[in-house]
Amino acid sequence: MSEKNLQVLLRRRPVGEPVADDFEIVETAVPSPGPGEVLVRARFLSLDPYMRGRMSDAKSYSKPVELGAVMEGMTVGEVVASNHPDFKAGDTVMGGYGWQRFCAVEAARLRKVDPAEAPLSANLGVLGMPGLTAWYGLEEIGEPKAGETVVISAASGAVGQVAGQIAKARGARVIGIAGGAAKCAFVKDELGFDACLDHRGDLDAQLDAACPEGIDVYWENVGGHVQEAVFPRFRDFGRMVMCGMIAQYNQAPGADAKGAPAGPNLGPVVRKRLRIQGFIVSDKGWQLYPQFRAEVLGLMKSKKLVWKEDVVQGLPNAPEAFIGLLKGKNFGKLVIAID
Amino acid sequence: MSEKNLQVLLRRRPVGEPVADDFEIVETAVPSPGPGEVLVRARFLSLDPYMRGRMSDAKSYSKPVELGAVMEGMTVGEVVASNHPDFKAGDTVMGGYGWQRFCAVEAARLRKVDPAEAPLSANLGVLGMPGLTAWYGLEEIGEPKAGETVVISAASGAVGQVAGQIAKARGARVIGIAGGAAKCAFVKDELGFDACLDHRGDLDAQLDAACPEGIDVYWENVGGHVQEAVFPRFRDFGRMVMCGMIAQYNQAPGADAKGAPAGPNLGPVVRKRLRIQGFIVSDKGWQLYPQFRAEVLGLMKSKKLVWKEDVVQGLPNAPEAFIGLLKGKNFGKLVIAID
Repeated sequence: MSEKNLQVLLRRRPVGEPVADDFEIVETAVPSPGPGEVLVRARFLSLDPYMRGRMSDAKSYSKPVELGAVMEGMTVGEVVASNHPDFKAGDTVMGGYGWQRFCAVEAARLRKVDPAEAPLSANLGVLGMPGLTAWYGLEEIGEPKAGETVVISAASGAVGQVAGQIAKARGARVIGIAGGAAKCAFVKDELGFDACLDHRGDLDAQLDAACPEGIDVYWENVGGHVQEAVFPRFRDFGRMVMCGMIAQYNQAPGADAKGAPAGPNLGPVVRKRLRIQGFIVSDKGWQLYPQFRAEVLGLMKSKKLVWKEDVVQGLPNAPEAFIGLLKGKNFGKLVIAID
Repeated sequence: MSEKNLQVLLRRRPVGEPVADDFEIVETAVPSPGPGEVLVRARFLSLDPYMRGRMSDAKSYSKPVELGAVMEGMTVGEVVASNHPDFKAGDTVMGGYGWQRFCAVEAARLRKVDPAEAPLSANLGVLGMPGLTAWYGLEEIGEPKAGETVVISAASGAVGQVAGQIAKARGARVIGIAGGAAKCAFVKDELGFDACLDHRGDLDAQLDAACPEGIDVYWENVGGHVQEAVFPRFRDFGRMVMCGMIAQYNQAPGADAKGAPAGPNLGPVVRKRLRIQGFIVSDKGWQLYPQFRAEVLGLMKSKKLVWKEDVVQGLPNAPEAFIGLLKGKNFGKLVIAID
């Protein structure tokens, strides 16, 4: 094969915001699939906030990427060659093959997808890990009921847009929070949220107006001043779905170390019987993938769920796009078109 | 009837720590039971931290006691006269009749208890609201499993002593936290906890030694510096049972108002998939009272559950005893022997 592999490696661990020099882009030989392995050519790479955690060697739920190793990430692409009977050349597959063009992986790490059901890149967003995260967090923790008020932070992002539309489909009143007028207009007008608040403005006043009766479910993607404004507004039996706190991912030292920014006083958790619960979709979420995919495909077909992608062309642009993601520069689910 | 009723009224709303003058003790006529009502003579009154909330008119899960009204509280006593077929003079009953000697109440608000099963006052503690609180919070939120490490704050208190012993009976390793050597010795030696730490000492160092692998379940009764020391030590999938935060009950303004003391940064809730959940036993707990009573009576009979009461003689001493309760001066479940 005359083609080359292209890979993005972790060159060093960032302190604070990652910079371009923390990554290294290399050309290598295309790997040969071993026994039982499948060679995949990735077409799209998903960039997601959790990757900042993998760049750090602070204790976390998952091992860090080693220095000099390929950055972790979900991709979608096609089988080039297969040493496993379940896959054949031309199959469309998704899985975690990293920031690279070619990857030889065990068959068990692949999931076949039907390319006729949705555009290829959708398998990384609305039908991929972010979509599954949204669906699973609502199933397990948020449990939005008809008539309840649900607030979604980072509402135009990969997880937020799906979470809000699913909550809406279940009959809740859904209020988004996003940064800037363009994102807010998109969330309200395109995604169909009941309102979208700009966290760069006076969030307290906007929440007063949008949620006069308080909040039943809050989907936490960001932390920081957004969490501070939302937390006192929970109604009795409110649920706080702890999906992420991107506002502090670039902070050093680790946000739960001594000297971390303070959080809310937990007195209201007793008084209002709140439930604050964190989850990581990889724990149990993928076991429910078929159920999730069926529900979300149904919503997509009936036009109750639309989605927006921010597609950046070319794997070499992934580091810059990722750095921007942590600053909220993307607009919609960020994916890299590899070639 | 020549006897008089004796009542403790709320005279004014305390600011910060309650003082004796916030209460008023009055002698009144013994009430006559109306149609369907039962006249009860209370023998013991339960004093509990939640009553501080009832003295305040800040928004809460329950209405405040009105100024000039009898303080709310659970009592156990006997039926003196009954206008309801389910009750007759001499029956032993428990229910919420307030800080007073006599009360005429609707039959629906009474629960008959068997005086042969346990000493009368136990129906206010280990077999009453505090015991039910402990059992219910573990059933619904804590869910301690064999081999897990459970930490109980206010471990010698009414709820803490029962929670710890139930967790122990379910096979967990149970570490108490209490104030002072006498309470700690009691928790370890009498209640049979695996260890008890003194929060007046260096709690971080004691927790390092007692919970080297971290904490699976934390029963929160106190807040403040105890919460601060425990929170960073949760293991993955830890549960924080939010029962109370007595350390801030006397604070003004309300602890969830602006300017309240800060709480923990919630970053680890995502990373460790923690669940922080509050509950109020009166929401649903009493529906499970028969199941709770059967389990706890069983533990008591097999000597797997012992309990300690702090009995103060005379209803007129209730205000002072309650003020002391908020400062941790009681040792065991605080009850008032009415006469």
